Parts: sequence; C-alpha cells; structure tokens
Amino acid sequence: MTDADWAGFRADERSLDPDAYILLDYYLECEGDPERAALHFCAEQSTAQWRRVGSSEDLRPRFGARLVDLQILDQERPGFSYEVGRGRVPSVSACRVRIAHPHGNFGPRLPNLLSAVCGEGTFFSPGAPIVKLLDIHFPDAYLESFEGPQFGVEGFRERLQIHDRPIFFGVIKPNIGLPPEDFSELGYESWLGGLDIAKDDEMLADTDWCPLERRASLLGAARRRAEAETGTPKVYLANITDEVDRLVELHDLAVSRGANALLINAMPVGLSAVRMLRRQARVPLVAHFPFIAPFSRLAGFGIHTRVFTKLQRLAGFDVIIMPGFGERMHTSDDEVRDAVNACLAPMGRIKRSLPVPGGSDWAGTLRPLYEKLGTIDFGFVPGRGVFGHPMGPRGGAASIRQAWEAIVAGVSLEDQASRHPELRAAIEAFGGSPTVAPTKTSNGNGSGGES
Amino acid sequence: MTDADWAGFRADERSLDPDAYILLDYYLECEGDPERAALHFCAEQSTAQWRRVGSSEDLRPRFGARLVDLQILDQERPGFSYEVGRGRVPSVSACRVRIAHPHGNFGPRLPNLLSAVCGEGTFFSPGAPIVKLLDIHFPDAYLESFEGPQFGVEGFRERLQIHDRPIFFGVIKPNIGLPPEDFSELGYESWLGGLDIAKDDEMLADTDWCPLERRASLLGAARRRAEAETGTPKVYLANITDEVDRLVELHDLAVSRGANALLINAMPVGLSAVRMLRRQARVPLVAHFPFIAPFSRLAGFGIHTRVFTKLQRLAGFDVIIMPGFGERMHTSDDEVRDAVNACLAPMGRIKRSLPVPGGSDWAGTLRPLYEKLGTIDFGFVPGRGVFGHPMGPRGGAASIRQAWEAIVAGVSLEDQASRHPELRAAIEAFGGSPTVAPTKTSNGNGSGGES
Repeated sequence: MTDADWAGFRADERSLDPDAYILLDYYLECEGDPERAALHFCAEQSTAQWRRVGSSEDLRPRFGARLVDLQILDQERPGFSYEVGRGRVPSVSACRVRIAHPHGNFGPRLPNLLSAVCGEGTFFSPGAPIVKLLDIHFPDAYLESFEGPQFGVEGFRERLQIHDRPIFFGVIKPNIGLPPEDFSELGYESWLGGLDIAKDDEMLADTDWCPLERRASLLGAARRRAEAETGTPKVYLANITDEVDRLVELHDLAVSRGANALLINAMPVGLSAVRMLRRQARVPLVAHFPFIAPFSRLAGFGIHTRVFTKLQRLAGFDVIIMPGFGERMHTSDDEVRDAVNACLAPMGRIKRSLPVPGGSDWAGTLRPLYEKLGTIDFGFVPGRGVFGHPMGPRGGAASIRQAWEAIVAGVSLEDQASRHPELRAAIEAFGGSPTVAPTKTSNGNGSGGES
Repeated sequence: MTDADWAGFRADERSLDPDAYILLDYYLECEGDPERAALHFCAEQSTAQWRRVGSSEDLRPRFGARLVDLQILDQERPGFSYEVGRGRVPSVSACRVRIAHPHGNFGPRLPNLLSAVCGEGTFFSPGAPIVKLLDIHFPDAYLESFEGPQFGVEGFRERLQIHDRPIFFGVIKPNIGLPPEDFSELGYESWLGGLDIAKDDEMLADTDWCPLERRASLLGAARRRAEAETGTPKVYLANITDEVDRLVELHDLAVSRGANALLINAMPVGLSAVRMLRRQARVPLVAHFPFIAPFSRLAGFGIHTRVFTKLQRLAGFDVIIMPGFGERMHTSDDEVRDAVNACLAPMGRIKRSLPVPGGSDWAGTLRPLYEKLGTIDFGFVPGRGVFGHPMGPRGGAASIRQAWEAIVAGVSLEDQASRHPELRAAIEAFGGSPTVAPTKTSNGNGSGGES
C-alpha cells in the first residue's frame, strides 16, 4: 500500500461522528515506523482489503477503524518487552494508540465486539506481536442497545435494606466436598453472626455430592429462618455456573428453592450467555473472576481488567467480584481501583455494579480496604476470615461486623477487640497486623482463597 | 499448615484411579520451596480449607488435587520471567508440574472445568504469579460425557466427496462492507475457480448492511449453481457468531437458506454455547480463533493453544481454524504442530477435527504447509491469495488448485506456472519466493489477514 492508502485509516477525532465509534486504547510494541504499524493495525482490525479487484470502490470511509492518537512511549528499543520467538529485533517502538472503531461494523453484540477489538486483527497485525487492550469507551448511542444490570447498586441495596455501609459477603468453606446439610448449617451460622450474604464458592457446581436443588432448598430455608431471627433481609448466593443450556433451568430451580441471588463465573460461561440469562433473571446476578488473570496480569500484553469489568457490567451483572488489594492477589492497587471505578463510574444508561474486591480478607482487612476505596459502595468477601474463624462462622461473621463498628465509631481495631472476643480471636488467628493477611495457618482451616 | 498437612496434596500417580482424574501440566514460577508452592497450588485449585472448624473430617482424599510430578527447571532465579509488580524477588524457581485433579469435583461441564484448571485457584496461588497451563489430558471416562464433533474429519470429507487431498477454503474479501449481492458474486467465482469452501470472514456478522438471511440466500443459490456447473459439492460457510440466544435461530436461518457449514468465533461466543449449538446442529461447525492469542502468545504465562484446541474439539467443532506457520502469525512452528496434533490425535470416543492453520496464504505457501504437516488432513485458507488475486477470485482459486497439482505431479511451482497463467500471476503478485508471504501489496487489494 502507498502512504496515501494508509492515510485512509487516519482521522482527526473531531471529524468523526462520536455516536458511531467506539474508542479503544492500546499499548503496542511494533517494528519499524510506529505510525505505519498503527495504521496497519487499524486496517487489520477492520477492512484490510477495502476494494474488490478491478473496482474503484473504497470501503474505508464507512468501515475503516481510524487512528486518532499516537503517543510514542519509547523508540528504538533493542527488542520486544516479552520474548515472542523473534530474537533480537532492531527498531522496536512502544506506543499508546487510540483507535476509533465504527461499531456499525458488527453491532451491539458482545461476541462480535470481542472479535473486533481483541480478535485476529488486533493480535495478528504484522510486526506488532505485543499488544494490550487498555481501555474501551462506548458512546451512549451504543450503550442504548444493552440492558446492563437489572438492579444495580441501588436496587441491590434496596433488596437488602442496607444504605449506610458496605455489604458483607462470605464464601462458605470448606468450598467443595461438604454435603448440602452441613453446608447449609455453615451458611445459617454466618447469617446469625451478621453476614448479609452467604455464598457458594465459584468452584461449587451442581454435583452428585452436593446437588443444587437440595443445596438451594436447605439454604433457602435456613435463610428464611435467619431472616426471621435477625429481623433483617439475608441473601443466599447460589453458584449456577454450568453449561449454557442449563443456565435458565438452574436459575429457575435455585430461585424457586430459595436462592435470592446467583453467582456465575463470567468468562468461563461467556459474557453473551450471561446477557441471555440477564434477560430472564428475577434476582441479582453476581460475577466471579476465573479465567481473567491469564489475559490481564502482565502490564504490556493481553487485555486490561478494567475492560473485563466494563464488559461484565454491560452484560448485566449487578455485582462484580474481582481480585482485591494485597500481594496475595497479584494485582496492583491502581488496577484494583480502576476495576472498582469501572463498576461505579457513569456509563450512559447502564446502572452501576457493586464492586467486590476480594482476597484473603478477614476483619482486619476491612478498614484498609474501605480507606483505599473511599466509598461504602463495595462488598467485602472473606472466606476463611469467617468460615475458618476459631469460633466458627457465627463468630467469624461477628468479627467482621465488629470491625465495621470500630470504623464507624472511630476506634482502633485493638480497642474494639478488647471489648469483643470474636474480633480478638480473629486478630489472633489471622494476623498481628490488621493490614497483612497471614501466610500460614494450621489445621486445614484454610490458607487463602478468594476468600 | 504443617508438612504433614501438605502431604495430603501429594500422590503417586499409580495409586490413583486413572478414570477419576484429569491430568494437568503447568509451567510455574514460584518463590521459596518449589514443592511447597506446588502443593499449595493443588490446595488452592481444589479444597484449600478441607475441614470445618472443630471437625476432624478430611476432604482431601476425595476432593484434593494431587501433585504427581515436579520437575525443577531452574532454581534460585533472580526474579520472575515477567514483571508482575513485585520487583526483585529472591529464590524464584521455575518448575513443570503435573497435577491430578479429580473431575468429580465439578463434572463434565466446560465452564466448571475452566474454572477449576485455569481459574482463581490456579492463577492466585500465593507466591506463584507466573503460571502457564501447558496441557490437559482427559481420561476416556470423562470424555464419555462429551459429544465432540458430529461429523469429524471423515464425515466432513464425506460431505465434500474429497478423500485424497487437503480441503481448499477461501475467506471472501473485502471481508466487511460489501452488500450481499456483491459478496455472493465473489463466492460464486471462487467456487468456479476451484475452491471447495467459500467462507465469511470472522468479523462479518448479521448486520443491516449485509443481513445473514439475504447473504445466506444468495450464497446458497450461488453454491447450488456452482455445484451444478462443476459437478462437485461446494460449501458456503456462514459466520453466525452472535449473541448466544440467537445461535440456534441463526443456525436454522442460515441452513434453511443454503449455508451448509457454520463459522463460530469459539472463545468470544464461549465454548459452552458452542456445545449447546452442537447438540442441535445439522451441519458442520467451524471454529475461528479470535480471543485466544491474548492468553497463549507468551511462552511462560497463560494457557497454551493446544489446550484451547482440545477444548474446541471437545465442544464439538468439526473444523478448527488456527494461526498457521510463518512470522506473520507470531506462532512458532512447534506450536502450530501441537495444535494440529490436538485436532488429529486419538481422544477417546471424540472424533477428529480438521485443522486449518491459516495466515497470509496463497498458492506458494501450500507446498511448505503440506510438507510441514506431513498429512493431507488439513484445510488451506487463503484470503487475499484468492480474493486479491490480480485475475479475481476465479483466477485466485485456480492458482491454488494448480499449486496442489504441482505437488501431486512432483513438479516445481515455477514449472507449473509456466503452463498456468493464474499461478504465474499469483507468484508475481504475492511473492518471488514460494515460502515467504509478501509484506506489501498495493491498491487496497489486501495486506494480510487470516487470510
């Protein structure tokens, strides 16, 4: 192609109809002239062959993705940041590009959106093997076609009648292996201790040793007993992650038995299947995060977690569980904040999703989490911090509530613990320092998790 | 946990019931003692908290994932291979581990399988931020629950009545932007020139400017005309990638109008949704590969492509399009061979899938591809090599058949070209050397692609 040909993939952003384009930010490492590489990247992502042989047509004006900004971050590097089997490559540039992609090319369809913005064109552009999709910005006109969360943060709070604090989740543990009877007893105890939501682990499926029907029946009944005893609404969050053709059936089954929110492993099931379920769901949908880290962990390659968070919100999740702060979760503080922000920031007509940053939480990690987030619009999701507590799940849940009361009262965790044996026991079991989760525990009562 | 506690996650492979375990091979970089890290990894992946507080139960014997082999590849490294925000970490080991994971933990469900083997437990094990799932081995007992491909290589060949050569695909280009009338004309020409299968690009959806119904009607009619004129079966491979709740509807629509194989972007749609479609499909299903490279490109992090290939086969794809050989596709020769092998190697009762390694193919890349694979059981899928050919798609398709005839006759491409103007024109347009795809073309008639 000639320089004039490539120019068809460049544009001044102000000249484009903002309603017609999705804006995409990428990190890119490429060989040779970075502008040429970025234009090639636009072509690959849209209409690489823009006319038929022997025709004078030009499909670029309507269908071409356009380079609207190019920042060169580092020029003449000695090679790519990651080894990709190319050995030493001279003249590598690292860039940040913004691309305007016409969404009319594929429409308001999640699988086709993914195919366009992180598909073959994106990851197989010549001379540009290192790519990370950093962010995605949707015009309101595109968002109009999506349903988004049915309840959102406000609707979810309304169901729980909680408006002045974070929402307290807990992952029932042992996560797998218990029969429904034992499992439901643990949930019941945790509600009585003060949890709002007792949840299935993301690994717990509809298996012969713990069938969903029986589990939901027992936990539904236990939930109602706990609600009667405490006088407050409670949630049993059942995991219905399963084959796509069972999702609606399992929704109906679990809800009819007493589950009043449903967990789905978003990426393993597929975002589009979640959107399908959302259209029929009668209860809040909660996302869990397996199958995202292998895309997102490295700084310069893959797809950023904030993109996944936005897509999960778009697919209709009311609550999004995500890796939280701390070395344990291999996620930087900035990345956690970005993902939380992607849940809560304005997004056209799409409701907000409740962010739940999790990872080795216990009573002592509540204050640092709250302080880092600077909002009460989040969920807190210990696992062993409640279910591995030396006094059992009732004591574990109580320790969480006591930690929150300390924050509200403005007293230290130690002061509060002097008046509350559950909190005292939590500190002894889970760590001397309230900001550091322990790395070792004993007796099979847990060693990490979501949770 | 104590050393004795961790020992519950170790096993001699010979002591385990082979029918009950999936075997998983991982590359792992971890801090500290590698065996301890690998045992922790097993715990995180299965039952990290294996008993209730105050109970003497032990869930490990039935539910624990087990370390069955540990090879230390590199000890006392100065840090991780990839920067993960940890700075210098002393005493990092690189290992290869084999883990036996009891599939009864989750059952024959693709989303739950993914959650177990590449989910939170796998990618958030303490001190082990660098993980790559290298391979997965299923016992026949597990495979019994999967349908796999409906037609497989043999059934697909039977439909085409081709038993002695590769299958010739072509991606109709311009890939997006043409109205159905123009688009179908290109397909028709390519069939007359000798293509077996004319296909939609993976980016082409059911849009207002090229509705699937109209496209399938026109291409279905054109296919039947081409079959009548050539006396050989032809395939129109329609892309039905769309939201999950439209897949069955679009299958029925496209097939009723004349599409006789269907393309689905496997990972954007989701493997489980494909399995759902497979149960109702009346024609072969063909996978395309967007949304895999961001997991798989780096040698030491993510998920290997052979795992995705096996999972696509398990989900029921009769044909699997994948990145092929050559620098253009950023994939090593070994990795391409591994993926091809994952399509064709025995896998219990699961039929073979036809591998289609693609990337900037034209007549001149057919011989090196065939020689590298050493089998005729593959598909060849040029894009511009047919549709950007100077003599148009009929000439482009003819050049592919001429290249195959040269291979069969044992003559060189140059010799063959001296007798065939289409092949001559292909060599002039696409490269002096038959093994090197050109990096530049002109006039918007293509610059790479799958294709």
